[in-house]
Amino acid sequence: MKRIVVAIGGNALNKPNEKPTAEIMEKNLLSTTSYLADLVEDGYELIITHGNGPQVGNLLVQQDMSKDVFPPFPIDVNDAMTQGSIGYLITQTLNNELLKRGKRRDIACVLTQIVVDKEDEGFLHPSKPVGPFYDEKTAKELERTKGWTVKEDAGRGFRRVVPSPIPLDVLEIEPIREMINDGTIVVAAGGGGIPVARDERGMIKGVEAVIDKDRASALLAKLIDADALVILTGVDHAYINFGKKDQRELKVVTVEEGKMLIDAGHFAKGSMLPKIESAIEFASRTGKEAIITSLEKVDLALRGKSGTRIIP
Amino acid sequence: MKRIVVAIGGNALNKPNEKPTAEIMEKNLLSTTSYLADLVEDGYELIITHGNGPQVGNLLVQQDMSKDVFPPFPIDVNDAMTQGSIGYLITQTLNNELLKRGKRRDIACVLTQIVVDKEDEGFLHPSKPVGPFYDEKTAKELERTKGWTVKEDAGRGFRRVVPSPIPLDVLEIEPIREMINDGTIVVAAGGGGIPVARDERGMIKGVEAVIDKDRASALLAKLIDADALVILTGVDHAYINFGKKDQRELKVVTVEEGKMLIDAGHFAKGSMLPKIESAIEFASRTGKEAIITSLEKVDLALRGKSGTRIIP
Repeated sequence: MKRIVVAIGGNALNKPNEKPTAEIMEKNLLSTTSYLADLVEDGYELIITHGNGPQVGNLLVQQDMSKDVFPPFPIDVNDAMTQGSIGYLITQTLNNELLKRGKRRDIACVLTQIVVDKEDEGFLHPSKPVGPFYDEKTAKELERTKGWTVKEDAGRGFRRVVPSPIPLDVLEIEPIREMINDGTIVVAAGGGGIPVARDERGMIKGVEAVIDKDRASALLAKLIDADALVILTGVDHAYINFGKKDQRELKVVTVEEGKMLIDAGHFAKGSMLPKIESAIEFASRTGKEAIITSLEKVDLALRGKSGTRIIP
Repeated sequence: MKRIVVAIGGNALNKPNEKPTAEIMEKNLLSTTSYLADLVEDGYELIITHGNGPQVGNLLVQQDMSKDVFPPFPIDVNDAMTQGSIGYLITQTLNNELLKRGKRRDIACVLTQIVVDKEDEGFLHPSKPVGPFYDEKTAKELERTKGWTVKEDAGRGFRRVVPSPIPLDVLEIEPIREMINDGTIVVAAGGGGIPVARDERGMIKGVEAVIDKDRASALLAKLIDADALVILTGVDHAYINFGKKDQRELKVVTVEEGKMLIDAGHFAKGSMLPKIESAIEFASRTGKEAIITSLEKVDLALRGKSGTRIIP
């Protein structure tokens, strides 16, 4: 049986300009989980990871709105909360989809802490904007009082920026492995994992950072010996010259070719680039393939008939 | 090796009149996890459950404060979020406490959905107050528009009341069993579990209810064949004539005696009563013992030297 990690985006739950209600998140998840259920029926051992960008962003803004009554939580705790809400909704909708098809499978979501290095160079150059927009005065005040780094965000105001460090280890990896081996469909590493770092004594502590969910998925896939990493996105393939007249879809790309295409600037930062990088990371470390494709094409892509395949 | 379920209260994280920051929750958890680590060192197989009353209450009020921008989530999703935040903090502090002692153990928190019956009579008489206080006009409006039941709360305004149905089944029970059998310390059934119910086709859906965390813990303990259920509270024992001149601590109580003491009105509703009821439920269903005691006495109580033991 083939073991696959499938990474779904935070946008699979909340689309831009939609009210972020639980009902809408659930409705949006129905089509996602229907495709995931197909994979289960095809006999794949499924491990699901997910983003949390829109959801953790909403939490941060919401906490800022009520900060005079409730002190806002740090990012690690907010990540844990979105692992709860999103993990619950994915688990439940997939469970129902399988029940509808007469399949009875165990599904469980494990809270996942992912270790990063406090010396990661990301901490020197925080770049990932999170949370609410502030006016300049408030932003400078927050820099001073909270030690935040804030940056102007394309004329829309100032926002906090946090590091996006490289994920190094998954604290709950053994329990996750055991659950997979026992046949459970596992939801893990949500939102890129709860970012934690070790101090000099080895103690663990949450850090104010955001781990890229595709990188976290690549790490998880490696650690559980997945046969393939599948990164879902809004398009069926990765492209070169994307959006230009000579745009061309990528079908099979070796790790070496992928690196050259990155160097040639073919992939958008914060969008396709981290997916390609994560796919390359997984393929080069494991000798297995990584697939970048859309939800609608995932089944075909796993049979080699669609998507972009990154091979060693 | 003895397998025990230990239920800790939501107040172990947030004490009344303390700012509910993540730092304070973590600090409060340090003493709790130190006692739990003792139990691990004593060789117990540990399954930890916890309450979420203060935390989910804060979330509901917070969401009400920003409701014009972010639609509030239903209770089941909020429960999932507190399983995330509290589960994360328990997992991390216990992990660190064990590391400090040179012990390396796997610890994982599993999101837990607990099934209730939509025909449970609790749904006919919602009685558990949750969330913010409203003035009468707003309260009546919410009854009309959202179908809520609201009740006046001791002159402090009106509050929503929700059912507290009996927990019947734990959806994630198999993965939880597997993890325990593999030696993982499991955090589960947080906040009494995420309440869900099945429709006529067997599909699962969250319900707006609150499951008593001691009842959920008793169910979990039964389903995983625990050797004992330990319910932690602020006092070392349960008492008869509590707070009166002839107050007397209860040491060993049979299920039959316990039922008589309940009928005689010795235990306060919403406080000691659900603990005694849950202890009786566990002892009578399993033939094993349930212990009600304080964190400080838990070790002694497990050796029969403190606490109130409910025996079959």
